[in-house]
Amino acid sequence: MEGELQPRTEPGKRFVALAEEHAADFATRAEQHDREGSFPHENVKAMQESGFLGAPAPVDYGGMGLESIYDTMIGMSRLARGDASTAIAANMHLASAAIMARIVRNPGASAPGTVAAADGFLKAVGAKQLLTCVPATEFGTDIASPMTEAVLQEDGSYLLNGRKSFGTMSLAAQILFSTARVKRDDGTYARALVVVPKGSPGVEVLDNWDALGMRASGSGDVIYTDCKLPAGSIIIQGEWGVMGSTTDTETAVSGNSSLVACFLGIAEAAREIAVEGVKKQRKGAQAKLMAERIPVQQLIAEIEMDLFTARAVLERFAVRAEQDAEGVEAGGSAGQDAYHDMMKDHQCMKFVLQQRAISIVDKAMTVSGGAGYMSKHPLARLYRDVRAGPFMQPFAPYEALEYIGKVALGLPPDLDR
Amino acid sequence: MEGELQPRTEPGKRFVALAEEHAADFATRAEQHDREGSFPHENVKAMQESGFLGAPAPVDYGGMGLESIYDTMIGMSRLARGDASTAIAANMHLASAAIMARIVRNPGASAPGTVAAADGFLKAVGAKQLLTCVPATEFGTDIASPMTEAVLQEDGSYLLNGRKSFGTMSLAAQILFSTARVKRDDGTYARALVVVPKGSPGVEVLDNWDALGMRASGSGDVIYTDCKLPAGSIIIQGEWGVMGSTTDTETAVSGNSSLVACFLGIAEAAREIAVEGVKKQRKGAQAKLMAERIPVQQLIAEIEMDLFTARAVLERFAVRAEQDAEGVEAGGSAGQDAYHDMMKDHQCMKFVLQQRAISIVDKAMTVSGGAGYMSKHPLARLYRDVRAGPFMQPFAPYEALEYIGKVALGLPPDLDR
Amino acid sequence: MEGELQPRTEPGKRFVALAEEHAADFATRAEQHDREGSFPHENVKAMQESGFLGAPAPVDYGGMGLESIYDTMIGMSRLARGDASTAIAANMHLASAAIMARIVRNPGASAPGTVAAADGFLKAVGAKQLLTCVPATEFGTDIASPMTEAVLQEDGSYLLNGRKSFGTMSLAAQILFSTARVKRDDGTYARALVVVPKGSPGVEVLDNWDALGMRASGSGDVIYTDCKLPAGSIIIQGEWGVMGSTTDTETAVSGNSSLVACFLGIAEAAREIAVEGVKKQRKGAQAKLMAERIPVQQLIAEIEMDLFTARAVLERFAVRAEQDAEGVEAGGSAGQDAYHDMMKDHQCMKFVLQQRAISIVDKAMTVSGGAGYMSKHPLARLYRDVRAGPFMQPFAPYEALEYIGKVALGLPPDLDR
Amino acid sequence: MEGELQPRTEPGKRFVALAEEHAADFATRAEQHDREGSFPHENVKAMQESGFLGAPAPVDYGGMGLESIYDTMIGMSRLARGDASTAIAANMHLASAAIMARIVRNPGASAPGTVAAADGFLKAVGAKQLLTCVPATEFGTDIASPMTEAVLQEDGSYLLNGRKSFGTMSLAAQILFSTARVKRDDGTYARALVVVPKGSPGVEVLDNWDALGMRASGSGDVIYTDCKLPAGSIIIQGEWGVMGSTTDTETAVSGNSSLVACFLGIAEAAREIAVEGVKKQRKGAQAKLMAERIPVQQLIAEIEMDLFTARAVLERFAVRAEQDAEGVEAGGSAGQDAYHDMMKDHQCMKFVLQQRAISIVDKAMTVSGGAGYMSKHPLARLYRDVRAGPFMQPFAPYEALEYIGKVALGLPPDLDR
Repeated sequence: MEGELQPRTEPGKRFVALAEEHAADFATRAEQHDREGSFPHENVKAMQESGFLGAPAPVDYGGMGLESIYDTMIGMSRLARGDASTAIAANMHLASAAIMARIVRNPGASAPGTVAAADGFLKAVGAKQLLTCVPATEFGTDIASPMTEAVLQEDGSYLLNGRKSFGTMSLAAQILFSTARVKRDDGTYARALVVVPKGSPGVEVLDNWDALGMRASGSGDVIYTDCKLPAGSIIIQGEWGVMGSTTDTETAVSGNSSLVACFLGIAEAAREIAVEGVKKQRKGAQAKLMAERIPVQQLIAEIEMDLFTARAVLERFAVRAEQDAEGVEAGGSAGQDAYHDMMKDHQCMKFVLQQRAISIVDKAMTVSGGAGYMSKHPLARLYRDVRAGPFMQPFAPYEALEYIGKVALGLPPDLDR
Repeated sequence: MEGELQPRTEPGKRFVALAEEHAADFATRAEQHDREGSFPHENVKAMQESGFLGAPAPVDYGGMGLESIYDTMIGMSRLARGDASTAIAANMHLASAAIMARIVRNPGASAPGTVAAADGFLKAVGAKQLLTCVPATEFGTDIASPMTEAVLQEDGSYLLNGRKSFGTMSLAAQILFSTARVKRDDGTYARALVVVPKGSPGVEVLDNWDALGMRASGSGDVIYTDCKLPAGSIIIQGEWGVMGSTTDTETAVSGNSSLVACFLGIAEAAREIAVEGVKKQRKGAQAKLMAERIPVQQLIAEIEMDLFTARAVLERFAVRAEQDAEGVEAGGSAGQDAYHDMMKDHQCMKFVLQQRAISIVDKAMTVSGGAGYMSKHPLARLYRDVRAGPFMQPFAPYEALEYIGKVALGLPPDLDR
Repeated sequence: MEGELQPRTEPGKRFVALAEEHAADFATRAEQHDREGSFPHENVKAMQESGFLGAPAPVDYGGMGLESIYDTMIGMSRLARGDASTAIAANMHLASAAIMARIVRNPGASAPGTVAAADGFLKAVGAKQLLTCVPATEFGTDIASPMTEAVLQEDGSYLLNGRKSFGTMSLAAQILFSTARVKRDDGTYARALVVVPKGSPGVEVLDNWDALGMRASGSGDVIYTDCKLPAGSIIIQGEWGVMGSTTDTETAVSGNSSLVACFLGIAEAAREIAVEGVKKQRKGAQAKLMAERIPVQQLIAEIEMDLFTARAVLERFAVRAEQDAEGVEAGGSAGQDAYHDMMKDHQCMKFVLQQRAISIVDKAMTVSGGAGYMSKHPLARLYRDVRAGPFMQPFAPYEALEYIGKVALGLPPDLDR
Repeated sequence: MEGELQPRTEPGKRFVALAEEHAADFATRAEQHDREGSFPHENVKAMQESGFLGAPAPVDYGGMGLESIYDTMIGMSRLARGDASTAIAANMHLASAAIMARIVRNPGASAPGTVAAADGFLKAVGAKQLLTCVPATEFGTDIASPMTEAVLQEDGSYLLNGRKSFGTMSLAAQILFSTARVKRDDGTYARALVVVPKGSPGVEVLDNWDALGMRASGSGDVIYTDCKLPAGSIIIQGEWGVMGSTTDTETAVSGNSSLVACFLGIAEAAREIAVEGVKKQRKGAQAKLMAERIPVQQLIAEIEMDLFTARAVLERFAVRAEQDAEGVEAGGSAGQDAYHDMMKDHQCMKFVLQQRAISIVDKAMTVSGGAGYMSKHPLARLYRDVRAGPFMQPFAPYEALEYIGKVALGLPPDLDR
């Protein structure tokens, strides 16, 4: 596609090429899965078999050695052109794998147990035997303040209880990286990452996702009821209610960024439909080609400008995130200031890209005439899928503005919530 | 609802009160019909039995004597709060009835045959025995240039052939007021209104409506195949390809205006959901009430301003349209200039109201958090329904601007299409 | 002008006609006063002599008996078409006169002293011998919290000290209605209206207005230094820091509304320039008329829609304000709830109208090509004048949203400031 | 400034550092020149003496060897922070110098005469003895269709007649690179670049610039009356009325891009004023710091997002333009397709950046309260300066959309004008 972003590393080029192949395939089934709200197990299987889902694993683990954040974002945008639901599901797994890969590439920066665990996970990922997901959201609270709780038992194990929403990819994953709170001796809470094998007693993964869009993403609820876990499954990450740990930064860089990139793919798909549509459609008594009508040309121009903008902000953020990631791997600081500094730019990128993507799909809908409003037309799906973007963690749009402003003004970025 | 528009005539007050009653009832079934894409026959029956669908008929015909355009618009906005699909379906019938009522109120302005026909229709409408609809749209052409054609036969009858799309209400109607072209002796075409009894041979009303939104409006295709009609069924209305007859003006005033009003109802429903939602919802570690967060207050304020604007433009247009309608009934000119002058204001009203309605639903979605994105949440339906607005005839948004500009500049309002 | 608002009362019609006459005259000097930043004393004199500035006074006081808020707003919009600076200056006086007229029309609702004072003022106004203004704004505080203070002296008189900004019309006025705070025995402050004869010792009216726009409005500073005033000059109006007295409501209805209306006039003037300009201008190698270019037509259409919207919200608010005003005169409640309920709608109207007015002038600038950017072109002045709108009291745009949201949600409308 | 763009080449770093030094100096005189509308001759002299205006000349010509388009854009944005008028004036000269430098770096691509001329010019530029400008705009026509005409005389010389507007920098330049048309034998016109020494008889450079903003840019008219020029002064560049020559591409890359960059500098200056202002200002009865009010934080956030976007699109375009420029220097095609392909992206960048810059200044004005509306406040100047952006050649905003759309759709990019 004219003007599209291009990967810069060799693994990135392979990853993007594979994404395009999968996208072409998935596009043929996207409408059906969307209509049914069914999870595309066959898509996941195909991505696992092709090595796409193992891409972040180092080559000697059986992966592609994909390290570049920018290239990962481009690959996800390409995949989303075919089926955005599948793309955001794949992203959950890829984000986890990318974090583990960073741990094994830089073993000195983490606890030995963490490195060993990451090593084990990555080997299984590289061997196409493991899929993971990250159920972190809960209704009624924010991402820094999970109400799901892991309670220490006398035998040193933990009992996990809680309910996660938006458990994208949970239907296919074997390991669920969840968030929870853990009470400390002084009565305050720590925030923890909890590693839950899906087969554990007390884990229930519901196939109950039924939403306006992203209907094939399998983003149903995950319920933990007295789920017993060994001590090693609980990794303390910081204060409950506070974002800013190194892991938070890495999660934002690895997972959130490539998630946002999926919405560029939706926009690009809509742009193609719009441009190709008006080149063929004729309307009115004189049957003039839509493309030859100046008001239509102007709408296409607005789409072009929006797309130029969306790509530009993605690129600018990615360059910055890669520099930050290098800094972290080199042992540099990744404390709370670094987190907020990076997250401010991430939120700028997310906000602008999502707005532009929504605007592009909307304008493509407009130039489609009534056709795009029909259920069978792909724009009807893109229109619903793209609206999911602004809901993505960690900030709602009305929170993002307050957050960005506070960081820009050098104030403590604690939202008034 | 605070700040809502209020009817001014006695029949209008009864009409609006009835609309509110129906809306409360229909709201209970709206989700189900939306999910299934099923036509709400029971809603139509209820509106016929209550006399709501007979409202425009004069009192001595068994109707409510509803004449006020403004009150009609308010009633339709109220009905749409409960189920927008049902409202736009009802509007198709009510618009036809309103035109017929204007004919019998002002018999000197029409041909005797037309008056007699209107008289007969209205009696049946008043007696709750007749429903009508107006299939006028076709894919690939504009509303002034129907490709459906009525061909004169040797016996003086006509054969009608063509395919109409967006045949809202056609599943329930007994009479279809369609548009067609009729060849003249000189080879040019006239534009005609064709009165088609649904039971006629060669009429096929498809139950094939499957769209992003307005899913319960029964807006499927209507196909005419060698449908034989008596000469009296064909009413010539003007030049093919040219809008501006008296009937065009009346259609715009009667039908298009109240259709646009339905989208105010959608916006008002979304506003209520948003306001009531944030008054109850708590989110975040401190469980602060959403309504107490300033960024949420600001979003509610934007909704309020949008709603203030939407109501204001509706009111301003209605006042103007009533003056025009009085002029027409008083025998005043309603030629092409009058049409374009009124249609320019209509398009301004439509464009602004639709934009504000879409914006309101979008912001309500935002303040809902992820909740409004779930299929079972009413906002998920309103979000899809409200997007139908800009597609409404006779101009797409990109055409409306060109049209308004040409009229404002005193240029011939022929679009470059 | 096509589609313009029309007055409904007889005094309103005379007021509007006079406004149009003055506007045509003032337009000839507007550029010169703008360039120099000079106050148009001759305009003020002309308006006083024509009776325009006495319009709100009852007929038996020598005035026009102008009561309608709507008609007053229309008149101010017409005047502003010619010179917006003069219009906002005139508005300061007219707003005071309107409040005094309401007092004498409804003498039972005010203290006898107030009625007598209003009676005296109005007689002087009707006799073309008195001009007034309302210096209420101070830098660094809000309108409910003046820092200017009136301190009670042992002899029962007060000493006034403080500095007012934006003292529009103060160069011509003989009486300054200022705001101040007055300490109570318990150490808290009351908010007061202070009547200051300009000739009093200690009153300094600076001719120091030098701003981006509204350069001929004479909105310089007014400084009070130990200005001695008799007890009767201090009228307590409510709590310091709190808006919501009957006078606040009346000020909003009388003064703020007609002030906002001036910005409609600016927009209408810009619209005329744009439309007339593109009908004459040719550009490009083929010298095609600008009006015949579709993208230009679309910009004109956007101006038309904006203007339709601006007029609609003005009209809708005016209808509501007149009902409220009738209620107040009839002895109805005008307490704090009534104030906020009305002020919410006022702010919706103000925000939307100002946004549309700014947008209209901006688009007129765009279609002007480089021409409108030249100092001698009237659009260069309108572009600077119209930007004053959002600064108008009592709320900045970022405050207005918080305020509207709080009122809509039924929360105490105290801003977080 | 946080997040600001950074130069990548060594000459670029020196250029940017020098720009920042000059900006700090020029800022001290900006208000005065703006108020008077006077041309800052002393600024131009300082830039010539520091070597800033010689930067594009190769090192052995006495220049800085500045080649990077990206770095040039950054330098111009920095300079404009101090005084945008001076920056756009300097840009006229720098753009010419950059084109000449590209000619001497790549001598095989141009005619020997052109190389020799460029060599001579650059030596004078490097020696701080020559300033140039580019008067190309004329009222009533487009940039591809100059009405100024060079008529061949019997002696082989030409007589030049015409009037140029917006002759930015012409008061200081010794050489004017103008555009003109030249009649061919077949009666059609060629488009030509004309090299005019300012001292030539028949050249009149008016000091008549008096505009809304950019008041210190000396953008007055240049009049040619029977100005006699030797044949070598006329360089044919292509068809009259058609853009797309290699020079057009280079002009766009060299001159237009760095011109647009100046508006980023205006936006950055406004952002600093806004952020620093709200950190100090207190307002309201409680004297709460403006920065601590959430609605103010949100406005600052919108500024941040706009700035992020403006920088991102500048960067994305610059990367692309540098690749194109390399292609041209390497002898690659730079024909009409290459021009339109590049110009489409340029227009996307320009449109988005200008919109964001205008929006940033407007929001900075809003958070300033009334303060920014005062003439002495720098925002009052930035508000007027930034509005010049959309008028910049070669397309008005309403043309840009039509142009971008046509190129995107693969249609001939000839505007309907």
